[in-house]
Amino acid sequence: MSISSPAYPLLLERTLAAPRAAVWRCWTEPELLCQWFCPKPWGVSHAEMELFPGGRFFTHMVGPNGEQVPNPGVFLKVEAGRQLVFTDAFVSAWVPSAKPFMVGDISFADSADGGTHYIARALHWTESDQKQHEAMGFHQGWGAAAMQLEALAASL
Amino acid sequence: MSISSPAYPLLLERTLAAPRAAVWRCWTEPELLCQWFCPKPWGVSHAEMELFPGGRFFTHMVGPNGEQVPNPGVFLKVEAGRQLVFTDAFVSAWVPSAKPFMVGDISFADSADGGTHYIARALHWTESDQKQHEAMGFHQGWGAAAMQLEALAASL
Repeated sequence: MSISSPAYPLLLERTLAAPRAAVWRCWTEPELLCQWFCPKPWGVSHAEMELFPGGRFFTHMVGPNGEQVPNPGVFLKVEAGRQLVFTDAFVSAWVPSAKPFMVGDISFADSADGGTHYIARALHWTESDQKQHEAMGFHQGWGAAAMQLEALAASL
Repeated sequence: MSISSPAYPLLLERTLAAPRAAVWRCWTEPELLCQWFCPKPWGVSHAEMELFPGGRFFTHMVGPNGEQVPNPGVFLKVEAGRQLVFTDAFVSAWVPSAKPFMVGDISFADSADGGTHYIARALHWTESDQKQHEAMGFHQGWGAAAMQLEALAASL
């Protein structure tokens, strides 16, 4: 018995010129995450991370015109140094959120040149959410954030 | 920073005249689950359970008129003998399903008389899903299933 789902994916794949351990630190230490997670001029003023299934993943995003956007969520999977999976479908373990929008599935592998093979996937519950996410600038936004991530990780 | 969600709960609470260990077995051993999980004349022809976060929780329900209803889902939390949390929001870890309908949160505690204090909660993403679930007969259906569970657990 197999039941599949289209999962409506968006995908960003990059080789980052920074060691995997440093990229992992930038993803999992809140004070580092705040420095790269939003494409400038947006930023993250505060982040909380509990690195286990059901653990809290909270970011508070701030915009250049004073926008304040809290983003609660939870981790679904944490494999140290290798993979992070999280979602906004729950505000905490395991309380449904107002709107399950996406699952983020981030994987990290060593690349041949001492860098990091980085794959960031966003999976959605609906096709309209996938299309909205793409129209909001998924590729540009996550791409810009990945460059900020690379620069920060390379500086550690 | 605290963000709450109404979670749109439905709740069934019972004291079952069967030991907690037996009730836990009936919930977590597929061949036992199949015997009580659906209120008769519905039944479960096949069940699969992987008792860890992200593990598969699949039941195939069959109706008296030949209805065939596969129900894929995943476990979110498994605390042996104490609590099971699962959802249909994912078809597998961690692939969004066509429709995130509910989180099931089942807790088991010893009651004073050697039985089991049993709390089954269904949390929903939307108020309309909560109301639909209630209209579908949540209280009657989960109540009937709990009586089947109690009888089976007491017989072990």
